[in-house]
Amino acid sequence: MSPVPYFDHNATSPLTTVARDAWLRAQEQAWHNPASLYRDAARVRLRLDGVRESMGALINASPERVVFTSGATEASHAIAHHLKRVLPESSLVAINPTEHPCVLAAFGTTFAGRLHALPLDEHGVITSEALDGALTRAPGPVGAVVVMAANNETGVLQPWLKLAERCRQRGISFVCDATQWIGKLPSADFGRADWVFASAHKWGGTKGAGWLLRAEQATDFHSQLGGEQQRGHRGGTEDFPAASAMLAAWADAERSKVFWESERSAWKDGFEREIAAYVPGVKVIGARADRLWNTSSVVMPAHENTRWVTLLDKAGFAVSTGSACAAGKEGPSHVLAALGVSPHETRRVLRFSAGWETTQEEWMDLARALKTVSERSQATAGSGAVVIPSHSAEEGPR
Amino acid sequence: MSPVPYFDHNATSPLTTVARDAWLRAQEQAWHNPASLYRDAARVRLRLDGVRESMGALINASPERVVFTSGATEASHAIAHHLKRVLPESSLVAINPTEHPCVLAAFGTTFAGRLHALPLDEHGVITSEALDGALTRAPGPVGAVVVMAANNETGVLQPWLKLAERCRQRGISFVCDATQWIGKLPSADFGRADWVFASAHKWGGTKGAGWLLRAEQATDFHSQLGGEQQRGHRGGTEDFPAASAMLAAWADAERSKVFWESERSAWKDGFEREIAAYVPGVKVIGARADRLWNTSSVVMPAHENTRWVTLLDKAGFAVSTGSACAAGKEGPSHVLAALGVSPHETRRVLRFSAGWETTQEEWMDLARALKTVSERSQATAGSGAVVIPSHSAEEGPR
Repeated sequence: MSPVPYFDHNATSPLTTVARDAWLRAQEQAWHNPASLYRDAARVRLRLDGVRESMGALINASPERVVFTSGATEASHAIAHHLKRVLPESSLVAINPTEHPCVLAAFGTTFAGRLHALPLDEHGVITSEALDGALTRAPGPVGAVVVMAANNETGVLQPWLKLAERCRQRGISFVCDATQWIGKLPSADFGRADWVFASAHKWGGTKGAGWLLRAEQATDFHSQLGGEQQRGHRGGTEDFPAASAMLAAWADAERSKVFWESERSAWKDGFEREIAAYVPGVKVIGARADRLWNTSSVVMPAHENTRWVTLLDKAGFAVSTGSACAAGKEGPSHVLAALGVSPHETRRVLRFSAGWETTQEEWMDLARALKTVSERSQATAGSGAVVIPSHSAEEGPR
Repeated sequence: MSPVPYFDHNATSPLTTVARDAWLRAQEQAWHNPASLYRDAARVRLRLDGVRESMGALINASPERVVFTSGATEASHAIAHHLKRVLPESSLVAINPTEHPCVLAAFGTTFAGRLHALPLDEHGVITSEALDGALTRAPGPVGAVVVMAANNETGVLQPWLKLAERCRQRGISFVCDATQWIGKLPSADFGRADWVFASAHKWGGTKGAGWLLRAEQATDFHSQLGGEQQRGHRGGTEDFPAASAMLAAWADAERSKVFWESERSAWKDGFEREIAAYVPGVKVIGARADRLWNTSSVVMPAHENTRWVTLLDKAGFAVSTGSACAAGKEGPSHVLAALGVSPHETRRVLRFSAGWETTQEEWMDLARALKTVSERSQATAGSGAVVIPSHSAEEGPR
């Protein structure tokens, strides 16, 4: 897609070819409002139901539980509001402190004074035992547990299925942000969580689209009130082209990509070994935790991360300082702080997040670029002038 | 776009060619997350700011007031929530009773017990004098006035600019749903309203995208909380491709379409004259009100409107019973009830809404089809079997 090796897939991925094709086909043939009564509209309605059924099949959930949204931010707010409506006023919400900012904002504003932080182990993981302990020690009854599947900044995986089962046994609602998991790892088990949500652009669908899975019994759930679209679960004209593109990219990943996980993990591990050798003092965050095959988050030995981003950009690599949505923000990352990374170290953190198209060679090129930048940067330390050769001679309109 | 003459543009319009091209170009060149720090991302950020500036120019408002949303439903809820936050608890909201269901739902739930219905004249219009009277007679101080620009079911136009000026003089917030106006009539004056919102798919942009104009002083407005996107006004990854498509379709309409309004109005008037002659007993709703050039809403002399939709569909015309979002809903339309249409008549209402591509001949064909269906339907009255020839021989995948 881009001539620049792109290592910021956790921020967003380019539209995949299958998603683009599905979207264009839908815009030609199925652009009608599915709420209308003539046959062209009825066909869109049927096709939208088809997407819902296929998505239900991908996660082993009944299609009635699937609600199309504008993305994970909308979903997290709608779920928080619903839980506030149905949970007793005395209920607490136990939440993973390394959730995405939109989830912390949604539950933080909706359950102000009623959040109970779950404890992380040294790798940033919430174990079943830690959950049990936290539920026992909580200062009140816990009505819902909120734990993401995979962290956007570090790639650390949570044992969400175990936690979901634990919550089910105790009759506690389990809420799981699956945004960084879908399209990267198999998603067949998400039907066993009560509430799940994700944003399509993270796996090659369009931006502005996503889905949520509502709890079985939450038949009165709604995100936006408006018309009677989606059985009243979400007002607003349904976007069949986006739903169709979201499914196409997701199904393609499930069909032909997610099985390559261990190979891709090995490439990332190789990269981390290389930089450990090339760049003395570099530290991988969550090094011994189960992590996404695509994500490597590291503390560099020197220099502000924004400087690294600029230098690597000039060298032809698109990388990130952390989560993209926090990139413009002052202050240290709550995720890294929860993992024991000091504010001083946080300013030196770089996140590399690959895609399925990323090659092993690109990972190795990135390691070498880090070495080059690091060496030249040391050589010129104090002079302020760091000049490195550009790897992307053919820049221009893309 | 479709071989079937399509008269349901108020439900949704097909993607225009300029919007499709803009979207595809953006997906190729500017799909990066505008919050990221490398140059490709910075370019997307600049281009997104460019869209915001162009949109501000189209409505004569400062670009800082423009917020990208997922559509009018999200916008109406966010504006209602903001006003609830900033208005004194004693404030009432004076609202047009013929607003779109999403607006009534947003303000109805947010300002429960604090809504004051504005009076309509016999044509469904809220005059400046009626607004003055209502503000004087309201049982408490009015903090906000909510009046749409053009009605989705009837096409009736409100004197929204006059109402906005009146509200400005009195220091009352004026909220205007511009969804059915944008792309059909010139939009240069919307900057003079405090709050405006619209959905892009109504004028040939993509579904799942829209914009709102926030009040000048509402610097702390937010729709979804999440990251720091859009200066904190709306969390969630910005969708540059959709914003770019939305602007392309809108600017194209402003540049080369909206000036043809009076010609198109004449075509619609001609259609209404034809059916008055062809179908005895037919009644045009809001006949003497200023209406959109594209919308004709009529009470047919006999038969449930769903039967009409089916028969006209077989004859090759896509039409609606009213608003698409209410089409699956039981119960009479609140809009038609407010206009004095009886529940009995409401069941016979058909809405025809054209697009810029709709030809005068298609309007005339539609009039003739109504005549044919009406006559055959009368001839076979009581038998239940109404067979009419299909005009659309070449149906198939579209």
